[in-house]
Amino acid sequence: MDKYIFEVPIKVRDYELDAQGIVNNANYIHYLEHTRHEFCEYAGLTWDEMNRRGWMPVVRRNDVTYLHSLRSGDTAVSKLWMERRGPRFIFHQDIFNQDGVQAVKAEVTVVSVVDGQPSRGDAMAEAFAEYISK
Amino acid sequence: MDKYIFEVPIKVRDYELDAQGIVNNANYIHYLEHTRHEFCEYAGLTWDEMNRRGWMPVVRRNDVTYLHSLRSGDTAVSKLWMERRGPRFIFHQDIFNQDGVQAVKAEVTVVSVVDGQPSRGDAMAEAFAEYISK
Amino acid sequence: MDKYIFEVPIKVRDYELDAQGIVNNANYIHYLEHTRHEFCEYAGLTWDEMNRRGWMPVVRRNDVTYLHSLRSGDTAVSKLWMERRGPRFIFHQDIFNQDGVQAVKAEVTVVSVVDGQPSRGDAMAEAFAEYISK
Amino acid sequence: MDKYIFEVPIKVRDYELDAQGIVNNANYIHYLEHTRHEFCEYAGLTWDEMNRRGWMPVVRRNDVTYLHSLRSGDTAVSKLWMERRGPRFIFHQDIFNQDGVQAVKAEVTVVSVVDGQPSRGDAMAEAFAEYISK
Repeated sequence: MDKYIFEVPIKVRDYELDAQGIVNNANYIHYLEHTRHEFCEYAGLTWDEMNRRGWMPVVRRNDVTYLHSLRSGDTAVSKLWMERRGPRFIFHQDIFNQDGVQAVKAEVTVVSVVDGQPSRGDAMAEAFAEYISK
Repeated sequence: MDKYIFEVPIKVRDYELDAQGIVNNANYIHYLEHTRHEFCEYAGLTWDEMNRRGWMPVVRRNDVTYLHSLRSGDTAVSKLWMERRGPRFIFHQDIFNQDGVQAVKAEVTVVSVVDGQPSRGDAMAEAFAEYISK
Repeated sequence: MDKYIFEVPIKVRDYELDAQGIVNNANYIHYLEHTRHEFCEYAGLTWDEMNRRGWMPVVRRNDVTYLHSLRSGDTAVSKLWMERRGPRFIFHQDIFNQDGVQAVKAEVTVVSVVDGQPSRGDAMAEAFAEYISK
Repeated sequence: MDKYIFEVPIKVRDYELDAQGIVNNANYIHYLEHTRHEFCEYAGLTWDEMNRRGWMPVVRRNDVTYLHSLRSGDTAVSKLWMERRGPRFIFHQDIFNQDGVQAVKAEVTVVSVVDGQPSRGDAMAEAFAEYISK
């Protein structure tokens, strides 16, 4: 059963390729971040607004497995679902190419840093309650 | 006669290449910015500190001519000199490869934005007085 | 009268911002390139295909004026029209925010490099004939 | 006991910051890649040359833990050691700020793709034999 709660299409931009003619590994990290931020906007609370409130969401870990390279002209779809483990919000993110071939499988851990210290994340948990997988 | 007042070496990083195997045109803009910021630090007033003071230096124009492509393994040298034209600070910037071949010739215009409005730039002019070409 | 022949929406991605909270000046160069490449695809001949044919389109000059900063959450529209001046293809590119305020005005010069030498560009001129402004 | 076999200093460039004023999480992936490529050059066989030989080294996994944010003005030192597990080359990479505080801890898996297929990596293993931890 499909656990995804959000998806966004991502067209490869040619400046994201490197000299091997494939999307450089760092740019998938950009795709993953952009997907999370689009999700936050969709869920009603943007990253920008969270920063203004002083919640400062920060990536604690990126664990990214590359399965299939994206290339010029590809349009990927980037999907996610999330869960909470104490102070950590875990985003499970998968990116597929237009043929349904999985390009990337990732687990991204985000914490909320309040006044420079990692917080329990209760405010974020409340804001995204309906999207957090039980 | 040489008007340059500052230079910094820049080693090409392979993620800066695109699928043509040459440094992507946008990355030279990064090199140019990095050179200006290193110059500011050298001159005693960092970009970060200028932002904290509310001077907010902002690029108003990048006019960049590409003469020779940089490639994997190249180490460039990036040079600049500056002048003031009213509220505008003009950085004349040139980048050469390790053989002295010019890669890029640029004129970059920076203004100081105070409280959201372009300022006369007098504070910046005073801070960098000894480096501004007459 | 409007000369634009192509436009594409561009949503700001938060990683494109810098510490001033505005899109970094180099990232507009990425937007401009992406717009040209999307245009080429629309016109029936991708950048990737031009490289395969050995035409290698290369940016010779970026002249970019920054008029209004894009920020988190903005969706811009990026428009262009083009003309030919001998071997040079000039892309006139303008980017506007969602309120119609112009963010960037640019003139980008592209040449076709064949076997390492700038060519007359006749093949490119023929391929894009119906889009080149007289 | 220290297992590192290579290190390179990395000065933060201000365009690598995001709106939170810290280096964006994707840019550490760039630092890690740049460190590996500098190591390859130091070891006598550049990434560029490996591509020319058709070995095409490709990142299979980035597992990156963020411990401390780098900021404007920081100069980090990026260190690595490597081991081989069958076809996979594991780079253990750590980045520290100028005060010795660890910013990032990463394990990066690279494989050699020959003719589009993951290879056993014997050619790469031989080329880097003296650097691979037993």
